[in-house]
Amino acid sequence: MSAVCYPRSAMADTIFTKIISGEIPSHRVYEDDLVYAFLDIGPLSRGHTLVIPKEAAETIDALSDESAAAIGRVLPRISRAVLKATGAAAYNILQNNGEDAHQEVLHVHFHIIPVFEKGAAEGAGLGIVWSPRDFNHEKGAALAAEIASLIESGS
Amino acid sequence: MSAVCYPRSAMADTIFTKIISGEIPSHRVYEDDLVYAFLDIGPLSRGHTLVIPKEAAETIDALSDESAAAIGRVLPRISRAVLKATGAAAYNILQNNGEDAHQEVLHVHFHIIPVFEKGAAEGAGLGIVWSPRDFNHEKGAALAAEIASLIESGS
Repeated sequence: MSAVCYPRSAMADTIFTKIISGEIPSHRVYEDDLVYAFLDIGPLSRGHTLVIPKEAAETIDALSDESAAAIGRVLPRISRAVLKATGAAAYNILQNNGEDAHQEVLHVHFHIIPVFEKGAAEGAGLGIVWSPRDFNHEKGAALAAEIASLIESGS
Repeated sequence: MSAVCYPRSAMADTIFTKIISGEIPSHRVYEDDLVYAFLDIGPLSRGHTLVIPKEAAETIDALSDESAAAIGRVLPRISRAVLKATGAAAYNILQNNGEDAHQEVLHVHFHIIPVFEKGAAEGAGLGIVWSPRDFNHEKGAALAAEIASLIESGS
């Protein structure tokens, strides 16, 4: 397969750059031209897997469409394999952007995190706290129109 | 654009099927042949957006590669627009599979959830509880080999 190169002038190398290159060893589960996937060694549960682009973008808003599509494309097949290997029936996919969103390594990564019962030897998985707020339809319509306009204009 | 049709014999229609068709109104922010995105009306924070495939798969392991790639491809541009419209600097992308993983509507959906300060009028966003467990490298190597083999064999 042909090589794919990205400008990295503004990007700091992270531990993930060294994992992709093989300089730091990892428990690899999948690799293609644009994507690398491996087990998280600080897992929330057995089978906790990281799926990352080879492109060194800090957050997904800075990632190329091509790399983002390549990650999306392999999430179903990697998820199926993680479920089959671990026996988990449920799982969360989480991708954090920014330190205030619990991002620790500044290179885009998708967590695939199997769910097991509380207290299970495999680990329970991701803890989620869900506190919805009220929704105002008038303000929501204005916000949706603004977001739609920004997407359309390619901002 | 040309129509894209999927077999839905085994799929129960959900509220998202009716949102995609327009039978139930939504605050739409983006749409293409394979993807529909709109504001969550039970938001964790201002700008909380749902990105869904038009294909009616319950969980992402059951989604086609094509639809999964199409969602991946638009996550960067939708995220940029949500950030710009809301002024948020950080955000989480979350996709839940199975009731034990907090999935409520049985149709694949990616949440884009902006993060604001605790107590902010916009809502703080997603609450995450992170409890890592120990990792055994010998068992990890065996598990990674099993997952890699399952992916390779297309299971």
